[in-house]
Amino acid sequence: MNDINTENLENVKIIYVNNPENKLQTTDFKLEKSKVPSLNKESVLVETLLLSIDAANRAWMQGRTYRDKIMPGQIMSGYAIGKVLHSKNKNFSKGDFVEGDLGWQKYSIAEENEIAKFDATKDLQLHMSILGISGKTAYFGLELADLKQGETLLVSAAAGSVGSIVGQIAKIKGCTVIGITGSDEKLRWLEEDLGFDLAVNYNEKNYIKKILAFCPGKIDVFFDNVGGNIFESSLFTLKNYARVVCCGAVSQYDTSIPQTGPRNVPGLIVTKRLTLKGFIVTDFESRRNEVQEQLMKWYREKKLVSKVYTFNGLENAPQALVNLLNGHNMGKTFITL
Amino acid sequence: MNDINTENLENVKIIYVNNPENKLQTTDFKLEKSKVPSLNKESVLVETLLLSIDAANRAWMQGRTYRDKIMPGQIMSGYAIGKVLHSKNKNFSKGDFVEGDLGWQKYSIAEENEIAKFDATKDLQLHMSILGISGKTAYFGLELADLKQGETLLVSAAAGSVGSIVGQIAKIKGCTVIGITGSDEKLRWLEEDLGFDLAVNYNEKNYIKKILAFCPGKIDVFFDNVGGNIFESSLFTLKNYARVVCCGAVSQYDTSIPQTGPRNVPGLIVTKRLTLKGFIVTDFESRRNEVQEQLMKWYREKKLVSKVYTFNGLENAPQALVNLLNGHNMGKTFITL
Repeated sequence: MNDINTENLENVKIIYVNNPENKLQTTDFKLEKSKVPSLNKESVLVETLLLSIDAANRAWMQGRTYRDKIMPGQIMSGYAIGKVLHSKNKNFSKGDFVEGDLGWQKYSIAEENEIAKFDATKDLQLHMSILGISGKTAYFGLELADLKQGETLLVSAAAGSVGSIVGQIAKIKGCTVIGITGSDEKLRWLEEDLGFDLAVNYNEKNYIKKILAFCPGKIDVFFDNVGGNIFESSLFTLKNYARVVCCGAVSQYDTSIPQTGPRNVPGLIVTKRLTLKGFIVTDFESRRNEVQEQLMKWYREKKLVSKVYTFNGLENAPQALVNLLNGHNMGKTFITL
Repeated sequence: MNDINTENLENVKIIYVNNPENKLQTTDFKLEKSKVPSLNKESVLVETLLLSIDAANRAWMQGRTYRDKIMPGQIMSGYAIGKVLHSKNKNFSKGDFVEGDLGWQKYSIAEENEIAKFDATKDLQLHMSILGISGKTAYFGLELADLKQGETLLVSAAAGSVGSIVGQIAKIKGCTVIGITGSDEKLRWLEEDLGFDLAVNYNEKNYIKKILAFCPGKIDVFFDNVGGNIFESSLFTLKNYARVVCCGAVSQYDTSIPQTGPRNVPGLIVTKRLTLKGFIVTDFESRRNEVQEQLMKWYREKKLVSKVYTFNGLENAPQALVNLLNGHNMGKTFITL
């Protein structure tokens, strides 16, 4: 069993050092090197291969969400994919591919309940994009909305890891798809490469009018990733009885000063008889295989494109997160180690 | 047929004259007297008996909702109960009781599609409270939330026409009921007369803490009538997967300056996996008889109390609405003519 001496491995970790005053800076992190501690009874040594960078990482710094707030001084939290280097746990073997919140570090000691094995016969990077959290989030969110063929879908953060898959799945389902995004480059990508029927840039004042001009019959399903201004303005584009999937609120993450604005939200929910549903993808984990098969099938049929925005080297994780929060990414952001 | 000369009847009408700058004033209305016009072919002459005063009346002044915006110069709109004095329509006869938006006036000429007959064998005032819009709104809202025995319900504007019935029905269903209200007098009424398990006064800073102290396990269903601050703060008292019924946003009606505040709403919907449903009671009109029977049964069994706040005389309608918007009412506000 004891085929590895962890003390010979040098760990590289990124420590979250400052609770950002407003927008996150790379200086809110520092890199540390240390020895890898020995394995406890039943624990597993994992080498991280790919580290996911998500807008949610920033939300975790704001307070308790679906997980505890992360505190300065801790290794930065983050979902990652890794390979078992050594195991003292009967359920894991050397060479197994695992996923979980391994943190921003090269090596981690994980307990059984912190990681899950997965079948990595497919391209590992696909597990970070369309087969990963983004793909599953898009799939289950649309299922919650009960999106039907012929309906019109609006998605915010449309060029993001989730939004870009949401739009593609909606096209596969035979829907009219409108995306809200933040640059003309992203707009072109959505319209020209992903087949969105319309993409609008929220930096233009009249983006809501453009949506209404394109579909005067208004929107059946709104898949919202951003919250704030865009969320509130988008409610005006919805039909009566429209369904809203609340997937995230990225516009409100990278700040310590919550935006203020008109509180028309409850009034519009009433007068338009809207249904809003919030969800977290991990609640659907039992259906993972079924959904990954469907997503993989679409990928093989070239109906679903996986776009990635990658950085090599753990030391670039802070910059990757800052870039994501500033909207530089198209598709899924992750680090290759 | 022509057994009445409408020209001998003097109509009294309240005209909506000013779009209020901020809070509604009685001077935003004026009283006018005029002759009643003659009946067109197929129209019906109705004498108003009871005029409903609703927070929604003020929302109609703000813009298009589920109906057109009301404009200065028009007779003020309002739901009312009346009696047919004369009919040129084959579906209505003299003496029929009818309901509809008859406006703030003593006599009205209604077309067939503007009024509905109803069976007034019960106390007519019950049709303005537990059997009327308030009772039906409470009933259908709770049905949308799928409230189950043993669950904990939170209701805002708890002493209002809808809120007070919501809480009582939830007690009948075997739930723990918490009400948010605006005065200690209302608080006592809810707890002592209506059997609410807890009522809190939102004018006290710690009202959210009081709710959480009373039910640390948090809330299953939140029936919101108010929107704004109270809506947003209440989201923190909800369990994961809680259901929110969005019935109204009265906190935002009596103003031309929308409140500003933290936009945490979409974020909390996500992290708590909330479902929010807006609705309008008129969508359920086909089930009116079934529900009125149930409400009447509870009333006869003394499980449901009808509390009313009435004014005599149409000239008092503006004051009644101003009082309602300032929270002076307990239960259902209406005018007897």
